[in-house]
Amino acid sequence: MYSHEFKKRVRYNETDQMGYLYHGHYISYYEIGRVEMLRSLGLSYKEMEEKYRVMMPVMSLQTRYVRPARYDDLLTIRTTLRQIPTQYITFHMEIINEAGKLVNGGSVKLCFVDMENNKTIPPPQFLIDALEGKF
Amino acid sequence: MYSHEFKKRVRYNETDQMGYLYHGHYISYYEIGRVEMLRSLGLSYKEMEEKYRVMMPVMSLQTRYVRPARYDDLLTIRTTLRQIPTQYITFHMEIINEAGKLVNGGSVKLCFVDMENNKTIPPPQFLIDALEGKF
Amino acid sequence: MYSHEFKKRVRYNETDQMGYLYHGHYISYYEIGRVEMLRSLGLSYKEMEEKYRVMMPVMSLQTRYVRPARYDDLLTIRTTLRQIPTQYITFHMEIINEAGKLVNGGSVKLCFVDMENNKTIPPPQFLIDALEGKF
Amino acid sequence: MYSHEFKKRVRYNETDQMGYLYHGHYISYYEIGRVEMLRSLGLSYKEMEEKYRVMMPVMSLQTRYVRPARYDDLLTIRTTLRQIPTQYITFHMEIINEAGKLVNGGSVKLCFVDMENNKTIPPPQFLIDALEGKF
Repeated sequence: MYSHEFKKRVRYNETDQMGYLYHGHYISYYEIGRVEMLRSLGLSYKEMEEKYRVMMPVMSLQTRYVRPARYDDLLTIRTTLRQIPTQYITFHMEIINEAGKLVNGGSVKLCFVDMENNKTIPPPQFLIDALEGKF
Repeated sequence: MYSHEFKKRVRYNETDQMGYLYHGHYISYYEIGRVEMLRSLGLSYKEMEEKYRVMMPVMSLQTRYVRPARYDDLLTIRTTLRQIPTQYITFHMEIINEAGKLVNGGSVKLCFVDMENNKTIPPPQFLIDALEGKF
Repeated sequence: MYSHEFKKRVRYNETDQMGYLYHGHYISYYEIGRVEMLRSLGLSYKEMEEKYRVMMPVMSLQTRYVRPARYDDLLTIRTTLRQIPTQYITFHMEIINEAGKLVNGGSVKLCFVDMENNKTIPPPQFLIDALEGKF
Repeated sequence: MYSHEFKKRVRYNETDQMGYLYHGHYISYYEIGRVEMLRSLGLSYKEMEEKYRVMMPVMSLQTRYVRPARYDDLLTIRTTLRQIPTQYITFHMEIINEAGKLVNGGSVKLCFVDMENNKTIPPPQFLIDALEGKF
């Protein structure tokens, strides 16, 4: 299991008229979480697309809203990989507020696509290598 | 079962650098679908909040990405209620492209909250009444 | 002078905790306005990029917020071209609410770029042709 | 003159199919810049709304796009106040990329509104006090 935490503040454009972080924006928080986890492993998603020509489209996700987040809250995005990916990769997500309470939990499943021929491929070796020391 | 369809075009600000409708935006499409379904029943979600002081926060949702949608695609948001809500309400969602192919499918579960005391309440009677003719 | 009107409803994800249409979203409304004006002329911005390989990046814009727009308001986006473009193109924008009152006004200046070599080019002839009957 | 800098990374949901930071999102970057400038002065915009019941709606803004920003760029938002506000407040904005080049420049003019009666008021004394040591 490998976990990574990243902090992000709720911005005004992310609030809605309930005064909450709009529920659709958690999906972007999930993305920030997994990109920053990759960065913590020495990997850049930008480079994955540009240099290695591998993209990671989202296949499915599920999310539960436990309590609201509000404007200016400094949230912790905790991203967890429970296993080294074999075909797909699933990130488990928790969004935690400044009081340490769970705001939202979910998971996102992605695949790897070779951008040259648009075919699904197994997880690239550089990702496996970067993860192996962590498990 | 009650289904409703509403069309929405993919806008430039909704695309990402893959050239796809960004996967997080489907959550807003779901919201547009259910609000327009309510309108088709003679109900206004705006009035629900302002006049009846009932809000409908999202409890959970799950979504599957079947094929990409692209800039300027005119998508059909099909929203289905499979039963008259008793405690929570679950909307089943399909996003369909101009070729009639499924782009995305999912479901969203919401509850009803009395905005005066922030307590969960059963589905309001005016909603049950509006739905009863349809089932 | 050529004007075109298009209606767009304010969606929940576009509101902020003031209960207003978030001020940054007007920029997307401007874009919807100009794309739909082009469509009214028989032109597709999508085709401009894909088929003619011409893109129209925004060079500058200015906007004035006159009165707030709110959730579920059905706004009219009025887009006006005051002259046939010679080098750049400037769209004059008005956002009008259901009471016919001006919500926001502004203008956006764009250029034309050949996507093959990333150079600025004059307005494409098919755009001039489409506009000439209107002036 | 008082300037403040804050860094923000371009996220995937902020890109568009040109591969650029979508031009409408700069408006949110401006907001982040001014909120973080206020925080650097010991002021919280959240508290201004909640505790002092003062909100700061945007009256107008203008923006020039100098060169594109791209996915994962770590941009510097430089926010400058040229004078202590008397009636309105104008923030001058520069967005600078990692190479130190100007990406975007602009300015935003806001007013102060008493949320209890929705009337425009002069700049609150605590803001003047916080700024006076800086000029």
